[in-house]
Amino acid sequence: MPPLKSWLSIDPQSHFSIHNIPFGIISTAQHSSPHPAIAIGDHALDLQVFTEQNGFAALSIIQPHQHVFGEKTLNAFAALGRPIHRVVREYLQSVLLENGPFPDVLQNNTQLQQHALIPLHSCKMHLPMQITDYTDFYAGLNHAYNVGVLFRGPQNALQPNYKHLPVGYHGRASSVVVSGTPIIRPNGQILLNPSAEKKEPILSACKRLDIELELGCFVCKPSSLGQPISVKDAPEHLFGLVLLNDWSARDIQAWEYVPLGPFNSKNFGTSISAWVVLMDALEPFATTGMANDTQVLPYLDEKGRKSHFAIDLEVTLTTSQGNTSNIGKTTGKNLLFSFPQMLAHHSVGGCPFNVGDMMGSGTISGESKREKGCLLEQTDGGKTEVALQGGETRKFLEDGDTVRITGVCGGEAGALVGFGECVGRIEPAPVLKF
Amino acid sequence: MPPLKSWLSIDPQSHFSIHNIPFGIISTAQHSSPHPAIAIGDHALDLQVFTEQNGFAALSIIQPHQHVFGEKTLNAFAALGRPIHRVVREYLQSVLLENGPFPDVLQNNTQLQQHALIPLHSCKMHLPMQITDYTDFYAGLNHAYNVGVLFRGPQNALQPNYKHLPVGYHGRASSVVVSGTPIIRPNGQILLNPSAEKKEPILSACKRLDIELELGCFVCKPSSLGQPISVKDAPEHLFGLVLLNDWSARDIQAWEYVPLGPFNSKNFGTSISAWVVLMDALEPFATTGMANDTQVLPYLDEKGRKSHFAIDLEVTLTTSQGNTSNIGKTTGKNLLFSFPQMLAHHSVGGCPFNVGDMMGSGTISGESKREKGCLLEQTDGGKTEVALQGGETRKFLEDGDTVRITGVCGGEAGALVGFGECVGRIEPAPVLKF
Repeated sequence: MPPLKSWLSIDPQSHFSIHNIPFGIISTAQHSSPHPAIAIGDHALDLQVFTEQNGFAALSIIQPHQHVFGEKTLNAFAALGRPIHRVVREYLQSVLLENGPFPDVLQNNTQLQQHALIPLHSCKMHLPMQITDYTDFYAGLNHAYNVGVLFRGPQNALQPNYKHLPVGYHGRASSVVVSGTPIIRPNGQILLNPSAEKKEPILSACKRLDIELELGCFVCKPSSLGQPISVKDAPEHLFGLVLLNDWSARDIQAWEYVPLGPFNSKNFGTSISAWVVLMDALEPFATTGMANDTQVLPYLDEKGRKSHFAIDLEVTLTTSQGNTSNIGKTTGKNLLFSFPQMLAHHSVGGCPFNVGDMMGSGTISGESKREKGCLLEQTDGGKTEVALQGGETRKFLEDGDTVRITGVCGGEAGALVGFGECVGRIEPAPVLKF
Repeated sequence: MPPLKSWLSIDPQSHFSIHNIPFGIISTAQHSSPHPAIAIGDHALDLQVFTEQNGFAALSIIQPHQHVFGEKTLNAFAALGRPIHRVVREYLQSVLLENGPFPDVLQNNTQLQQHALIPLHSCKMHLPMQITDYTDFYAGLNHAYNVGVLFRGPQNALQPNYKHLPVGYHGRASSVVVSGTPIIRPNGQILLNPSAEKKEPILSACKRLDIELELGCFVCKPSSLGQPISVKDAPEHLFGLVLLNDWSARDIQAWEYVPLGPFNSKNFGTSISAWVVLMDALEPFATTGMANDTQVLPYLDEKGRKSHFAIDLEVTLTTSQGNTSNIGKTTGKNLLFSFPQMLAHHSVGGCPFNVGDMMGSGTISGESKREKGCLLEQTDGGKTEVALQGGETRKFLEDGDTVRITGVCGGEAGALVGFGECVGRIEPAPVLKF
């Protein structure tokens, strides 16, 4: 299929081609209350204005639900369910399509264009969803293996459960922030000399601050206590994906995590990209994930369904000196379990879900060094250094470093389905006084 | 101080004496939308009706905030802050006081009594707070030690971090339910033969279903990303306490929990008592907790402040045959860290808090067998049996079992400050089909 073409001028390298139509929450100088929009090229189409000025007049199915485009988050839109998401996305595509069926809605309506088409650079982006519960999985097999080797050696790198179920833990919803939010280096308890027999922690700014390259997935369909979601039905519960940086304080984590798992090492900030790419936009890039040499139990068996996505992921680091280096490159296919499998497992015991719940994939790493999704892996646990442009090096992140994750599907110019970016700059830890 | 006396007839053994005034969310046949109330003796005082009929006319400070008593949860009331909670609670006490300053508000107002004083047995109770994030700690030293002995032997029972910081993990907010909600036995992956070399899990109904006796604490003051809450300021961030049963699937937990902690073993239901006992009501019972032989870092040092509470806790089990047995008895003092310490630690790295966040204490156990707060401890990991009334025995919970936790401060009749109960009955696991 040749790329669709819009009457609106769109850079062929834009992540937000007419094939994408991601949803987000914007505010502007004129309209300071957060409200929904889609991204198209280097513009946002303000859906609140579009709705108020009868942009959806031709789409009768959305008439009773138009209030969702006046909300401060996408939760109400998400809750309408995937059949409605599909119709709305396809309608907006057709409104933007060259020689499309609805030229009078926007193309020939310069007044609406003036009010509703806003340059992206003048939009302030907000958290797209009110995140009710956040769960972080660990489905990146290479990451789990690499970290396991560091802690337990290659023979016992993966725990016995690893290939049988998507290992995960409950995260902290309150600390999820939208791309661009500064990340403040956390203080916490660390051991200066972890190998000393006497364990005497100090309170210190984290000295081993790391990234974790992940995908996040939003739930759009609620389920009740005691109601498992089958792996077959799970896709209808999924709204869309975002890029996710699960910032991690490795020294705090090493001291705190036994026996109940990561805690303060993870709850000082989790960044997500601002635009939610709907599952329907990702469908053309559906593929299988990593092969699992363990036969999973029937409740996790997707029977070969393609429910992973070929998303090209890239991480760059820009130092305060202004040097930008690529420090990671991998693909969304590097996951052993898919989001439908994660949801099926998460709910099999009866855990209930709300619209706005988010699942993180776990760190996505490839096999080679530069395909690794966190610095802990790239530096062999802080033993080696990553060489950056301009002769700089890093073991872990320094104050002033900016980390930018990008992700995009489809190599074809003019038809890219991308996520934009997930970016955060490290600010110094606050000085604590007692 | 002799007990205060109300003009309302109150059983001297009631948990809801005039010294208490706990807040909850009720609905009734006449008024089916959930709304706030307080418990007094065997009545609820409906605060929505009380407000509408000018019950707060004499309390000018609450005038601008009266809408909080028309909300579906206590979050808006909690958000008013502790100074307002104090004033409202003391005003309601004075309205209920014999020979009090406000006899015309309720005592001499039979019409308002008819509308606003509702027998507790005709109230349906709802979750008192919209729980935004839930964190479960592990501050019950005896429990942590006992479980540690089971898993690692007495030499290594406690991890090196245990006495330095309140160990905790993020829980699942969506699965917190109000007392009385049936608990459905979860399905999940378990190992039938954990000691076999080849680990082949099956999907099964949990066979080792357990309780965990805890206290829960609600946050009433928000904090921002990067904003630590000092242990000194923490008490002003706390709204009140509830009883909490952290139902646990031990076999699912044993298989899933490495390396990231408990997950599906904990997210199928967490019960809390319906009435929130405000921190001010608990102040007279403030005491120190367990002695910590480790000097904590300054950010956790309460300098001897009494921030634990002498709450007598009791657990009973009623089988489907109708036999009721006391299976646990302990005190809220059996905690190594207090809620202010938990909040100070949780926020030290910058984790933000919302009004409605809940912290669980961790399982509270004493030292003797019948003081242990879960069956795993009482049965030495399922090796021995607990003897019940009527010749029945249990290692873990069976379908149809009802577990009831009660908690009360103060032995003096007529002045009890109690929590009522936190109760749940086990229903069979659903049959899963693929």
